Amino acid sequence: MRGFDLVVVGGSSSGIAAALTAARRHCDKKIAVVRKEEKALIPCSLPYLFHTLDSPRKAFISDEALSAAGVELVIAEVLSLGRREGKLLTTEGEMKYERLILATGSTPLPPPFLGGEKENIFVMEKELEKVERMRASLRRAGEVVIVGGGFVGVELAEELSKAGKKVTVVELLPRCLSTFDGEVSAEVERLLGERGVRVLTGKRVKEAVGGEEVEGLRLEGGEELPAEAVVVCTGLAPRVELAKKEGLELGPTGGIAVDEYQRTSDPRILACGDCAEKRSFLTGKPVKLMLASIGAFEGRIAGSNLFRDLRRNPGVVGTFLTMLGETVFASAGLTEEMARKEGFRIAVGRASSSTRHPKNLPGASTLKVKLVCERETGLLLGGQLTGGREAAELINLLGVCILSKAKAENLSLLQHGTHPLLTPSPVVHPLHRAAEEVRAQEFLGETPPF
Amino acid sequence: MRGFDLVVVGGSSSGIAAALTAARRHCDKKIAVVRKEEKALIPCSLPYLFHTLDSPRKAFISDEALSAAGVELVIAEVLSLGRREGKLLTTEGEMKYERLILATGSTPLPPPFLGGEKENIFVMEKELEKVERMRASLRRAGEVVIVGGGFVGVELAEELSKAGKKVTVVELLPRCLSTFDGEVSAEVERLLGERGVRVLTGKRVKEAVGGEEVEGLRLEGGEELPAEAVVVCTGLAPRVELAKKEGLELGPTGGIAVDEYQRTSDPRILACGDCAEKRSFLTGKPVKLMLASIGAFEGRIAGSNLFRDLRRNPGVVGTFLTMLGETVFASAGLTEEMARKEGFRIAVGRASSSTRHPKNLPGASTLKVKLVCERETGLLLGGQLTGGREAAELINLLGVCILSKAKAENLSLLQHGTHPLLTPSPVVHPLHRAAEEVRAQEFLGETPPF
Repeated sequence: MRGFDLVVVGGSSSGIAAALTAARRHCDKKIAVVRKEEKALIPCSLPYLFHTLDSPRKAFISDEALSAAGVELVIAEVLSLGRREGKLLTTEGEMKYERLILATGSTPLPPPFLGGEKENIFVMEKELEKVERMRASLRRAGEVVIVGGGFVGVELAEELSKAGKKVTVVELLPRCLSTFDGEVSAEVERLLGERGVRVLTGKRVKEAVGGEEVEGLRLEGGEELPAEAVVVCTGLAPRVELAKKEGLELGPTGGIAVDEYQRTSDPRILACGDCAEKRSFLTGKPVKLMLASIGAFEGRIAGSNLFRDLRRNPGVVGTFLTMLGETVFASAGLTEEMARKEGFRIAVGRASSSTRHPKNLPGASTLKVKLVCERETGLLLGGQLTGGREAAELINLLGVCILSKAKAENLSLLQHGTHPLLTPSPVVHPLHRAAEEVRAQEFLGETPPF
Repeated sequence: MRGFDLVVVGGSSSGIAAALTAARRHCDKKIAVVRKEEKALIPCSLPYLFHTLDSPRKAFISDEALSAAGVELVIAEVLSLGRREGKLLTTEGEMKYERLILATGSTPLPPPFLGGEKENIFVMEKELEKVERMRASLRRAGEVVIVGGGFVGVELAEELSKAGKKVTVVELLPRCLSTFDGEVSAEVERLLGERGVRVLTGKRVKEAVGGEEVEGLRLEGGEELPAEAVVVCTGLAPRVELAKKEGLELGPTGGIAVDEYQRTSDPRILACGDCAEKRSFLTGKPVKLMLASIGAFEGRIAGSNLFRDLRRNPGVVGTFLTMLGETVFASAGLTEEMARKEGFRIAVGRASSSTRHPKNLPGASTLKVKLVCERETGLLLGGQLTGGREAAELINLLGVCILSKAKAENLSLLQHGTHPLLTPSPVVHPLHRAAEEVRAQEFLGETPPF
């Protein structure tokens, strides 16, 4: 039987990040990653496999970094963790381990309506074979209904509309992408509408109609939507079967319970990524955030903490990015709605400007910034951006500000580098102006400064 | 005679930012900006007035924000500050003031060679008329020599080459853009070369040759470069005549001496932007950094501190951005070379990756990250990026990290949001990997973690 110092179960974002970090930090240790699939698809790229990329084979996670780091990749299914003996049972035999990292990820939720087993009803699976089957079926379909208007649903809707399909999105909540505040969701829905995507919000799907093959969806209230194919994008559930079977504790959102060092209830086993419980950096409460970026972040923590607790997870900020047409939508931390729901007294600052200075330069678009801060202190709780590609790294800048507990005053005094072809003007940068707007509200309760 | 609570002298980036901040912070105060020019050109856009923009009139600073904020814009030349009586003398009459902010900016250095007065030898002036004269002359010239390979020189060289000119850049130092480390400069010079720009480094211009009109430049050593026009881009000098005449103290780099609240030696007069002295956030030493972004930053400090010291300038980080073709070059803080010169013991981390994941997605390019950290502590001293447009806001993220005294370990644990179409993969993001490389060097001197 083969022996390892560390075995990582799962070879997607989180597992690979954990293994690479462990290999760097503990260079004398023998490390293996066990993954069921020969080749894993980049999870966040899934929507783009239906139009932008002409083959899912172009979206494989590269395993080169693993072999370069001396990590062994074992293609096998894990049958049990054998944690009492430190012995993993896999379809390819047993593997002894000193430490185990669980990065087993998540599985898509099943259709939340009757008749979900009919043909041409899909959930967004991550396995190559299933994706290829889905692609073949969608290619033949003229009319597609997407159930769920979250990130995956919205991105897939745009892709399929680009591919010439007639697409309808049905969302249970009052709006799409409720990760954002209402005004941002409205803009997302407007752009989808412009593309010809029909968006139905506040609607629950009751059942699938048709024979063996789906022919449509019936909504509560009776309305029927014709469909040659249906894709269900209603979210993900943590994949915890192995952990559960072995008696590891689960947490309030159904993930594997972990402490701030990513340790499970068994100190020799760590967990990270979609399968593990998370806490919000901002509220301290359990939060269900399943993002490859968070998975990789937690992997970098778990991979360090195998033999000594070196890295602490302070809680997750939650940074989201997406793009519709040429418009980027991005959010970090709490939205205005979330912050109010959590009971924060807040001040909101809004500003926008051209992304070039002068705005006559080619490629200019409008960057809109919304900041949500604690009113009394100015502490940054969250930010939302709409704009061009620059918004992507600018939201990460706001993420750093949240992590470093920056206040509106700090944002006012950011020494933001600028360039005519690349950024807004330094004089009226919307980040500074939104921060000043928050500051003005902070002062309302105070004696004026003079 | 008209009276104001605050008069700002200078109506470019720094002056406008100061006036807007003052208007927001002190909304009951009467504020005026005095500017010589009816319309001011956006200073950093100057190189782009020679090809990308077809008229300099498309690059005016917008004065709308000033009028919206209730700030009066007075078009006049200031003749003296009259600081003893608090009375400004201008070409349009006297103006009484309680507080004064000097944002008088900078003037281009004159040609550093003999014969610089010949026709068709220009410095990069900021006034509309002079820019128009220069444009007319450059339009007729087939062969142009640019003296000085800093940002303005390099950007202008690319613009003029796009406009079909035969361009030579002559730089005194061993390389162009010495704001960056050598490997970045080399890439800049390579891109210029690809464009057909001839770059001569380590060369001093001795004199201009020709009659009334310039016909060429003679270098030390004798080489002669033919030129129908010459543009001198060797830097800027702070514009301090008014301050000097009035006995305000000057600092070691020739700017108006200010404390960390932007106060000059006269407590009723503040100064900000190119005309004011600066200190480095990283070394605490005087530093000559003339950037619109720093001017606006200091304007936001000065505009707050009129009647009470509210905002402190912790020193300038120095964030630079430029773009050649589709490649962005960006730097924040100290380069490796600067850090070594300052006596820091450093660790350097380098990593690169595709800016999309998978890298097969359209628009992918390579993002290269270089981090310079203090070896003992991992404290981030500086970063340099080469890549697509995403590098622009990513360098600002590094600027925030420097300001918040982040260490390599903090960078390893950034919760960087990612998206296939917008960012590198979260698993192998070069920011994290470069930080890990620094961490590995930090450990060299330590007992291994286990």
